[in-house]
Amino acid sequence: MTTVAAYAAPAAKAPLERTTVERRPVGEFDVLIDIKFAGICHSDIHQVHDGWGSSVFPMVPGHEIAGVVAETGPGVTRFAVGDRVGVGCMVDSCRECENCRAGLEQYCLRGNTLTYNALDKNGEPTYGGYSHRIVVDENFTVRIPDGLSLDVAAPLLCAGITTYSPLRHWNAGPGKKVAVVGMGGLGHMGVKIAHALGAEVTVLSQSLRKKDDGLRLGADHYYATADATTFEKLRGTFDIILSTVSAPLQLDAYLSLLRTDGALVNVGAPEEPVSLNLFSLLNGRRTLAGSGIGGIRETQEMLDFCAEHGLGAEIELIGASEINEAYERVLDSDVRYRFVIDTATI
Amino acid sequence: MTTVAAYAAPAAKAPLERTTVERRPVGEFDVLIDIKFAGICHSDIHQVHDGWGSSVFPMVPGHEIAGVVAETGPGVTRFAVGDRVGVGCMVDSCRECENCRAGLEQYCLRGNTLTYNALDKNGEPTYGGYSHRIVVDENFTVRIPDGLSLDVAAPLLCAGITTYSPLRHWNAGPGKKVAVVGMGGLGHMGVKIAHALGAEVTVLSQSLRKKDDGLRLGADHYYATADATTFEKLRGTFDIILSTVSAPLQLDAYLSLLRTDGALVNVGAPEEPVSLNLFSLLNGRRTLAGSGIGGIRETQEMLDFCAEHGLGAEIELIGASEINEAYERVLDSDVRYRFVIDTATI
Repeated sequence: MTTVAAYAAPAAKAPLERTTVERRPVGEFDVLIDIKFAGICHSDIHQVHDGWGSSVFPMVPGHEIAGVVAETGPGVTRFAVGDRVGVGCMVDSCRECENCRAGLEQYCLRGNTLTYNALDKNGEPTYGGYSHRIVVDENFTVRIPDGLSLDVAAPLLCAGITTYSPLRHWNAGPGKKVAVVGMGGLGHMGVKIAHALGAEVTVLSQSLRKKDDGLRLGADHYYATADATTFEKLRGTFDIILSTVSAPLQLDAYLSLLRTDGALVNVGAPEEPVSLNLFSLLNGRRTLAGSGIGGIRETQEMLDFCAEHGLGAEIELIGASEINEAYERVLDSDVRYRFVIDTATI
Repeated sequence: MTTVAAYAAPAAKAPLERTTVERRPVGEFDVLIDIKFAGICHSDIHQVHDGWGSSVFPMVPGHEIAGVVAETGPGVTRFAVGDRVGVGCMVDSCRECENCRAGLEQYCLRGNTLTYNALDKNGEPTYGGYSHRIVVDENFTVRIPDGLSLDVAAPLLCAGITTYSPLRHWNAGPGKKVAVVGMGGLGHMGVKIAHALGAEVTVLSQSLRKKDDGLRLGADHYYATADATTFEKLRGTFDIILSTVSAPLQLDAYLSLLRTDGALVNVGAPEEPVSLNLFSLLNGRRTLAGSGIGGIRETQEMLDFCAEHGLGAEIELIGASEINEAYERVLDSDVRYRFVIDTATI
């Protein structure tokens, strides 16, 4: 066991503070990673606030991890000391079910092991990336291509793959009109990726406050959803609507913006049930779907794609002592567009 | 104009009674059809009861029409006097929008003309199939193959195409597990068609009352949804769930029965909004969709498929004087499985 520095929430809704946690010894197929940067995801805050009702404390959040391999287990074949690597939302899965075999570990039928706020196969708690070091199986570690700086790469491990995976699955590309709902951590990556995939991209944001950024990042159009005429103007327009917001959507209004056979895909996760008129789906054979992160193979594909197209996250780099303030600012939608912790400051 | 006998509702919720309506002169591309049989669809009752709030009276319901061509306009090329033909839910559409050009007239972007309770292009009300005769454009008329009796073919024009179209669109076939929710007019056709397409078919019905019929019509399994253990047993089982019920579904419970990437498709039309937890879609990248009838080309394909596989509806043939009683029995789910009116009795 190795004792490493970390920032943890000692209890639900408590401020995060510096502490230490134990990392397991480096096993046969493990890599020890010197964490350099960790992104702050909205779901970190959800879990620190026990918003989904299953949080365990103390909690070290962080599932957008970028670092460098410091040590490898004897069975490791894919990574060497000094390699630039990332870890996302999962650190293990059953590896045997049909979904795991198909590279869909995010939908592991026996339940995967989340990077923090979970128990691993030995029943030990997992601790996330707000920390100096982490030990992860090489099969749940991905390579960060040379073209990507580690700081802007970190958020790709959640915000990147969460938007890339559904955009690919629902065939965003040339000739397709894609709307991205929400211009935050996920949304701004959705805009960049959909644009790089060749789609015509529209941002649907509450206000026009971030319009200049949206257009700069690749959006072709930008509309305020607070303006009711937006829904009239854009009726029947989109092949894909990617909703990245965690506030409950007015689903029927957004579904009316889809073309025939269009799909509204939610990657945000409202805590309360939403209301829906099924006629909104009947008209135009529309679909409402959900998507969660992506598989390990697809996460590597996403990183390679982002490197090829020069896509990193837009970040605000902070020190560990600023984490609690950053949480408040995320809740106020006051971040452009992802806080990333320089873990050397922990 | 020709005056023809019909059964009509004179006002919302009023009993239907014998009357006469005017049919337009046979135009260049029209066929005059001697109606032989007309099915009673649940949505006939919805509309007579003004359940969707846009009904116009007097109303002659009926969009499951089977008959014989009695006269053809001078421009008609596809049908001749004596041909066995059917008419479904639509009698016209714009024919110019991209959906119409793609054979998706049911999703006509300018709005199609429904067979009854609508206004045609000349602003005249449309009257449906509870009648002796109807005049329809040949492009909205389909051929009933010789292998199908007209009485059991009539319900295919709505109940058949409404289930066939989504089963085909979502790729029901060998190796796929399909659940059909509801064992009524639509549901029993869903079972027959999904079975004929080669899928493994499960009926999910409130009780086991119609189990013998379900298995006889092609279901491999039959479960009662009133039994809560059904939802535990079948968790994560189905590729496609086709819901044919118009009562609001417990969507989250049904979505939990889908496999990864599975689709719950609604063809029933509850009048009230339903509640949904978006996590039910996130888990397993599930989709919730809707589908409305089918296009004209696909309706012909469906009839040919049904003839090839010997699939007609299971019907109770009634005289016109029994229509009001039949409506009551449909509302009580007391029909196996579709009332069909012998229009000679009007």
